[in-house]
Amino acid sequence: MKHLYPLTIALLLAAPAAAQHTAPPTPAAVDPRVAALRDAALKDDLAYDIVEGLTTEVGARLAGTDAEARARTWAVAKLTALGFSNVRSEPYRMPVWVRGAEEAEIVAPVPQKLTLTALGNSASTGAGGLTGELVVFSSYVEFANAPSTAVKGKIVYIGNTMQPTQDGSSYGANGTARFTGPALAAQKGAAAIVIRSIGTDAHRLPHTGVTDFPAGVKPIPAAALSTPDATLIERLARRGQPIRLKLLLTPKMIGERESGNVIAEVPGTDPGAGIVLVGGHLDSWDLGTGAIDDASGVAITAAAAKRIMDSGQRPRRTIRVVWFGAEEVGGFGGKAYAQRHGSERHATASESDFGADRVWRFETQLPESAKSVTARLASALAPLGIVHGSGLAGDGTDIEPTVATGVAGIDLNQSGLRYFDTHHTPDDVLERVDPEQLRQNVAAWTTMLAIVANAPEEIGAVPRQ
Amino acid sequence: MKHLYPLTIALLLAAPAAAQHTAPPTPAAVDPRVAALRDAALKDDLAYDIVEGLTTEVGARLAGTDAEARARTWAVAKLTALGFSNVRSEPYRMPVWVRGAEEAEIVAPVPQKLTLTALGNSASTGAGGLTGELVVFSSYVEFANAPSTAVKGKIVYIGNTMQPTQDGSSYGANGTARFTGPALAAQKGAAAIVIRSIGTDAHRLPHTGVTDFPAGVKPIPAAALSTPDATLIERLARRGQPIRLKLLLTPKMIGERESGNVIAEVPGTDPGAGIVLVGGHLDSWDLGTGAIDDASGVAITAAAAKRIMDSGQRPRRTIRVVWFGAEEVGGFGGKAYAQRHGSERHATASESDFGADRVWRFETQLPESAKSVTARLASALAPLGIVHGSGLAGDGTDIEPTVATGVAGIDLNQSGLRYFDTHHTPDDVLERVDPEQLRQNVAAWTTMLAIVANAPEEIGAVPRQ
Repeated sequence: MKHLYPLTIALLLAAPAAAQHTAPPTPAAVDPRVAALRDAALKDDLAYDIVEGLTTEVGARLAGTDAEARARTWAVAKLTALGFSNVRSEPYRMPVWVRGAEEAEIVAPVPQKLTLTALGNSASTGAGGLTGELVVFSSYVEFANAPSTAVKGKIVYIGNTMQPTQDGSSYGANGTARFTGPALAAQKGAAAIVIRSIGTDAHRLPHTGVTDFPAGVKPIPAAALSTPDATLIERLARRGQPIRLKLLLTPKMIGERESGNVIAEVPGTDPGAGIVLVGGHLDSWDLGTGAIDDASGVAITAAAAKRIMDSGQRPRRTIRVVWFGAEEVGGFGGKAYAQRHGSERHATASESDFGADRVWRFETQLPESAKSVTARLASALAPLGIVHGSGLAGDGTDIEPTVATGVAGIDLNQSGLRYFDTHHTPDDVLERVDPEQLRQNVAAWTTMLAIVANAPEEIGAVPRQ
Repeated sequence: MKHLYPLTIALLLAAPAAAQHTAPPTPAAVDPRVAALRDAALKDDLAYDIVEGLTTEVGARLAGTDAEARARTWAVAKLTALGFSNVRSEPYRMPVWVRGAEEAEIVAPVPQKLTLTALGNSASTGAGGLTGELVVFSSYVEFANAPSTAVKGKIVYIGNTMQPTQDGSSYGANGTARFTGPALAAQKGAAAIVIRSIGTDAHRLPHTGVTDFPAGVKPIPAAALSTPDATLIERLARRGQPIRLKLLLTPKMIGERESGNVIAEVPGTDPGAGIVLVGGHLDSWDLGTGAIDDASGVAITAAAAKRIMDSGQRPRRTIRVVWFGAEEVGGFGGKAYAQRHGSERHATASESDFGADRVWRFETQLPESAKSVTARLASALAPLGIVHGSGLAGDGTDIEPTVATGVAGIDLNQSGLRYFDTHHTPDDVLERVDPEQLRQNVAAWTTMLAIVANAPEEIGAVPRQ
């Protein structure tokens, strides 16, 4: 970590100028115990051990399937063995969609096989497949502006030009094609839809992800092509000849099944001070083994909590680690948690669900009574290369239902520069995790927990829109 | 190209010291016409146009299939349109192997789906698949040393630790697991074999490639796992529990089919001076669209020949561009060419079949009468960053049967540092080709043709082992 110190010094020197609207004029002192915990966490091996174990001994764990149930069994055993308290699995039920066959080919103007994968909630083409004319749109906006007559009975293609961004903002901007493209295509009378994967790579591995067909909209077959397959279609389209595609997609809804959240705690000394909620999600998409999405998140948060547990001093606040179920397919675990635990007093909520690359920024949303916590976080996180962002915290599908009740939020934002290269693809495997960057994450979360769980300030509700 | 000049100067200054055993003591002068052709080729767009066209308008082109036949039709039309002479397709027949279903999963100790692909000439597991115990070997040597009793009736796994090398030498060293592993496993009585892909990437895309079952050895199912799937198996194996695999591979031999070489010429003024043979292979594996293997090779050599054709001066020697068929599956095109044309006088033979990254080295094997050609090549290629290697030229599956008759060879070696990341995978698509490096290739081949096709020296036979 020595190489970080020049950066640290630069950040500290720059702080007074940058701090006029976001932080006190002089940096808060760093508690030596916090600094010691932070620096020790830079040698952490537990988080990698958890990611390695979950991806090797369980593998893919699609929500509501036997694989996700095996993951819960594994998680309870692991968290118990690590010495956490009150380890348990809390079940709930949810509708389950499972993948079937997936094949595609260009039929005309030239036969070429395509690599694609169904989007979550896609309808089936039936076992015989579906052949149709392709209508090519370079962007969601172009598609949205097209009249229904242009797509009726046809297969819609939507391109995108997603670029990597550190804060992941390009996902929202380009993701519309996946989030709402299929429903709009269904409403316009399209037979099916294929989109260019919502991703930043150029590999032959398509990106799945959930799409939403609102009540009253009959689902159609919906899939994502790998980027090179999408660019092939775009090149053929530029040649001006009609393109015909054959799709075979046989996913199906299999009804309600059991899913669940796994919970573990480091009990605090002051039950009235509120719970510090941290976690990630245990389920993954079925194509990879969910190493960055989100074995890393559950691993980072548990490893950090374990460091506080083992520090020799019980924290003031109870740290509750939740490994949420069924995040990918609609955030069922987060909703079930809020339903069951929403009436308990939570001090803060924080979620790690953006891979395992370096944390580069933190943001908070704390009540006035606890503003000084932010200053202490800024000082203690700076040596890890983490800057204080000006946004309001509380992001994440799993904590959103809890945060919506007025719970304060603290976000530790990972770099998104590589995340969408392999997000939701078969390539989300252990090799994607950089052990060194993973350790920096554990150090960041350990620092956050050491400060927040022990903060003497009152951390009550914050106003939410 | 300005940035290359300092390197050039350094190379020229270094030449006297390095030249004691390989080149004359002072650099040969560069013919200004050669330099002009070379520098103009650095703006070449034809090679990329050919790669784009072949991968977009034809796509994958497995030897002996309809797709390879479409590629020949496309090639004849393209080379004719470019103005080449004597453009024709020369057919031959060959046995054809085609891929079938390919699925695999770990059955025990934990169910996990695996990504793999059959090796060329693999046997079928039958439609019901094959389930068996896995015996894990970390290397080919470890496997080769194991007694038959250790693998009889089981599925063999062979790992490797292939690293990228500029000269591609790690392919030979690690490739044995694919080239001869399956035959040896069959001889030892194994039920099937899976190898870690012979590749240098860590993506979920397996590398296919041909394997050989000699006469008398009954083929068994043989496949390559993607690297992350292989490392998963190795991690599970280290845990010590027995591993059971289920394989479903249904490739088959479909008998003899037609394949062919496509030939085009730039006629020379001196028929007695011998043919300058250049080319690559038109067929590709079926998983990708064969952009680097070997649309690039056919594109580079044709684009270079076209530049000589368009130079306003007919070359002394006829330049013959051959787009060989059926290289991947056993070099049938190269053998058919030598059979048909071996009695014609060839001056030199050169093949481009190592992707589209920069040429970094050239080597020659020329008769004494033409040694000065090497010196002129060294001077003219140096500004492209190309060094003179000390090995003997004549490499390549397609030219080998011709070279074996005593034809001189000139090799232009591309960098192999990225090549085996995507070689023989679904990821061998247009996106792998860097247009800038492709242009450097065209410049190198144009330079070589300008010198060799016009060399006043006699270029006769060289002794071959």
